[in-house]
Amino acid sequence: MGALRLPSLTSLFTSSSSAAALPRRHLHLPFRRLYTANCSAQSSTAEKEISSTSELEGPPKLKPQQDKDRVITPRSQDFNAWYLDIIANAELADYGPVRGTMVIRPYGYAIWEAIQDYLNAKFKETGHSNMYFPQFIPYSFIEKEASHVEGFSPELALVTIGGGKELEEKLVVRPTSETIVNHMFTQWIHSYRDLPLMINQWANVTRWEMRTKPFVRTLEFLWQEGHTAHATPEEAEMEALQMIDVYTKFAYEQAAIPVIAGRKSKVETFAGASKTYTIEAMMGDRKALQAGTSHNLGQNFSRAFGTQFTDENGQREHVWQTSWAISTRFIGGIIMTHGDDTGLMLPPKLAPVQVIIIPIWKKADERTGVLNATTSVKEILEAAGIKVKIDDSEQRTPGWKFNFWEMKGVPLRIEIGPRDVSSGSVVVSRRDIPGKQGKVFGISTESSSLVPYVKDKLDEIQSSLLGVATSFRDSNIMDVCSYAELKEAIAQGKWARGPWSASDNDELKVKEETGATIRCFPFEQPQGSKKCLMTGNPADEVAIFAKSY
Amino acid sequence: MGALRLPSLTSLFTSSSSAAALPRRHLHLPFRRLYTANCSAQSSTAEKEISSTSELEGPPKLKPQQDKDRVITPRSQDFNAWYLDIIANAELADYGPVRGTMVIRPYGYAIWEAIQDYLNAKFKETGHSNMYFPQFIPYSFIEKEASHVEGFSPELALVTIGGGKELEEKLVVRPTSETIVNHMFTQWIHSYRDLPLMINQWANVTRWEMRTKPFVRTLEFLWQEGHTAHATPEEAEMEALQMIDVYTKFAYEQAAIPVIAGRKSKVETFAGASKTYTIEAMMGDRKALQAGTSHNLGQNFSRAFGTQFTDENGQREHVWQTSWAISTRFIGGIIMTHGDDTGLMLPPKLAPVQVIIIPIWKKADERTGVLNATTSVKEILEAAGIKVKIDDSEQRTPGWKFNFWEMKGVPLRIEIGPRDVSSGSVVVSRRDIPGKQGKVFGISTESSSLVPYVKDKLDEIQSSLLGVATSFRDSNIMDVCSYAELKEAIAQGKWARGPWSASDNDELKVKEETGATIRCFPFEQPQGSKKCLMTGNPADEVAIFAKSY
Repeated sequence: MGALRLPSLTSLFTSSSSAAALPRRHLHLPFRRLYTANCSAQSSTAEKEISSTSELEGPPKLKPQQDKDRVITPRSQDFNAWYLDIIANAELADYGPVRGTMVIRPYGYAIWEAIQDYLNAKFKETGHSNMYFPQFIPYSFIEKEASHVEGFSPELALVTIGGGKELEEKLVVRPTSETIVNHMFTQWIHSYRDLPLMINQWANVTRWEMRTKPFVRTLEFLWQEGHTAHATPEEAEMEALQMIDVYTKFAYEQAAIPVIAGRKSKVETFAGASKTYTIEAMMGDRKALQAGTSHNLGQNFSRAFGTQFTDENGQREHVWQTSWAISTRFIGGIIMTHGDDTGLMLPPKLAPVQVIIIPIWKKADERTGVLNATTSVKEILEAAGIKVKIDDSEQRTPGWKFNFWEMKGVPLRIEIGPRDVSSGSVVVSRRDIPGKQGKVFGISTESSSLVPYVKDKLDEIQSSLLGVATSFRDSNIMDVCSYAELKEAIAQGKWARGPWSASDNDELKVKEETGATIRCFPFEQPQGSKKCLMTGNPADEVAIFAKSY
Repeated sequence: MGALRLPSLTSLFTSSSSAAALPRRHLHLPFRRLYTANCSAQSSTAEKEISSTSELEGPPKLKPQQDKDRVITPRSQDFNAWYLDIIANAELADYGPVRGTMVIRPYGYAIWEAIQDYLNAKFKETGHSNMYFPQFIPYSFIEKEASHVEGFSPELALVTIGGGKELEEKLVVRPTSETIVNHMFTQWIHSYRDLPLMINQWANVTRWEMRTKPFVRTLEFLWQEGHTAHATPEEAEMEALQMIDVYTKFAYEQAAIPVIAGRKSKVETFAGASKTYTIEAMMGDRKALQAGTSHNLGQNFSRAFGTQFTDENGQREHVWQTSWAISTRFIGGIIMTHGDDTGLMLPPKLAPVQVIIIPIWKKADERTGVLNATTSVKEILEAAGIKVKIDDSEQRTPGWKFNFWEMKGVPLRIEIGPRDVSSGSVVVSRRDIPGKQGKVFGISTESSSLVPYVKDKLDEIQSSLLGVATSFRDSNIMDVCSYAELKEAIAQGKWARGPWSASDNDELKVKEETGATIRCFPFEQPQGSKKCLMTGNPADEVAIFAKSY
């Protein structure tokens, strides 16, 4: 049995009379129904998807019989409905019973595992060790760093009862671990020889968000959080930059998402950090998604927790620190970057299934030959390290399967029919090029030609997804020189890039008036002298403004 | 940089004048001090290690200067102190700030990663997919299955405040996930075609334990929990047996722990299960450790949660289920099975470092040659997939390093000095055979001879650890025919194995009078007719009685 199981959706359909048209009509859409029911008008300034205001809400029962004429909402018609339809139909996630929580289903979790595999190796290569900190943090810890408590206290979940008794001190369910990490670092770090201390943990975190959206913002989510301590500010700065670079490469090379890396404005800096670096991704609706962050924490937490070391001259000093994280939110970013009206579209490097093989036959005597050829192709590709799956269920037509696996975003489809068996060849179709244009007949099943062909196609799809997303991004960023131009760009739904040296108050005014925030001061800056778009004063850098998730 | 960082302990020692004797004297022992401070008398019936009765307690500060004459307590002298000394000195774990919680440090976590790597692959091979369920469970869920709530309600942690507001319904922080799993399964399972549904999650769980002990019983721990649903009771039973078999093979082949697999008595069955299968391991103090369990849940949860499917005849039926888990407790089992007075002893297959290389030189002109040889040996072994590390720090003597890495349980040590460099050879020492007997000189550094030699030695150590543990186990199990003999065996600290068909009340009487419980009815049963040791009535099976963690 393969690693993926798709138990409920596919097996709802026993009849297959109308082939290709049928599956879409039958798909049940719990996410979309829930969200549209609670959110009749969409705000123009920020996400307003509120799943429910009551404390507990079970997901609506799946009632496929009543859903016969539901289809995936076209992306252009209602981006949010489209997003929720994909999550439900591709079985990426479902609602948990507690408001704002999410069950990550096997197909969605397999994407997370692919993300973990890549990043985990990179973290180790760059000298970090995994470990695990408890998730219960004494409430008093959160209060120690002034801006940290201000940032996090509104969204804490608190344990007040343990083992049947009221606790003396409330416990915070980890929203992030800087405080408990520093509490421990203070005990482990004594001298400069203990530095740098570089660790990471893969964990769940809880933030009591009022406005939730699957993957993008949930009450509990999964992430990795790196934490490091250094002897000098320069080392901490290098580490923070190194890790945002790891994230940037990951986004480009694995997820085919052309993020823009840069520095956050003071207003948008993490609660407790000196500097926050970020990667910002443009979603299909042109809203920005903060897809990963790396913080230079300076000595803020080490001063709050007394994390000191003795330097080479015998002086006691506070350590310089960083923290950095990527979460399951990134999966939402992949969906909203590459998906189309047909459904999900996964970059080959993160796809749980890279190739789906669909056997096709009509007469009983064709069956064995076709299935044998299917198995043989699967074995050839598997031996070459390609993630491949056969859909040989007999309850559904090939047309139904084509649609289903396109909707699931599998990059390549191989079709094998009786004629292909006799000619020793297969038909290969690309998910990213619809219809006949993406379909090639007569690919030999000889390992020596099939394997390189499939690998090349997967590579081509990977680059093509990045190329398409990059063009989309670039055609939706406007260079602006004045606040009027900025407003115009934002009103058009685009990102605005322009010189900025104005005040925090001006930044907040832009947010209030346009709904856009500074996403970052990009690392890549245009040459030459610049004037602030707001004040006309000299500006060192351009900033990118956009509405965001 | 390698995957492992050992930041604080090693760097406390800057002087190295008295070489081999020095490190033991300097080791700081926070665990031991904490436990001995709170636990002056040790009960003979069960573990009574109570870390603290106050809600919050930080681990004692590390004060190496004051610890100069501390050593690892000999195992024979005080098993519990020895255990805590190892955890502290080998930097496997530390106390979290909240009573009963544990920070798993990089070296301890790396053992957990090795456990995960093996089991994760086995779970996928046997058809399970990973996914993730939210950790917050509505309190009402826990109450739905009568024996489940009885078993778990005393040890729940409850979230009562979220986002600054009192919640309408208290939320349970996951102690195990059967209830939320069934809530979701009820929505995903419709027909027999959706079955079997076989999933697993790697997660943290919380149980408000009063008596905690690092790894063995902590307020929060890490585990995997498998959950499956089937169309027939036979399939569920096969699955429960299959998974206890996966655990058994893991224990024998990876951890070198000769567990005894069997069925729990009714009294000891999991709260909510029809049958519980277990693997029971004998620790170095001859107490039993329940090291993994697999439950046949029957229809208990599916009835409580209405998890039904339509069978092939169109009838609605409740699904048959299993769940199974192994946790970070297993790391405690490894420590207490293989460790000795010198410290930890890790089975090569789970060791984060399989080979430690220690360069030895006195004169400055020897340094380069020795270090080059060291690097070359490391590269040769690494290329062969062996986990290898060099300790080339210049603050410590070779003697100090020998002791340190023995204490950390690294299976093989390679020493390279100037004479070895000239002869193109190395010295190889086994952790499991102390002194000269475990030391072999003149092993060629040619890849073609070094690699197979090291691999063979690692295999030998792996088998040898299992052999030693098996002999120890077998010499400490007494076959008993009467209650008097059972009491005698338990009084001697041994396990008692004897025919049993008596009542639950008799079982509880044994527990009360001897401190021993039925660990399991082993799968391997002696032939022939048997009479119950308690009642003299015919008995179908022998049971194993022991004191346990």
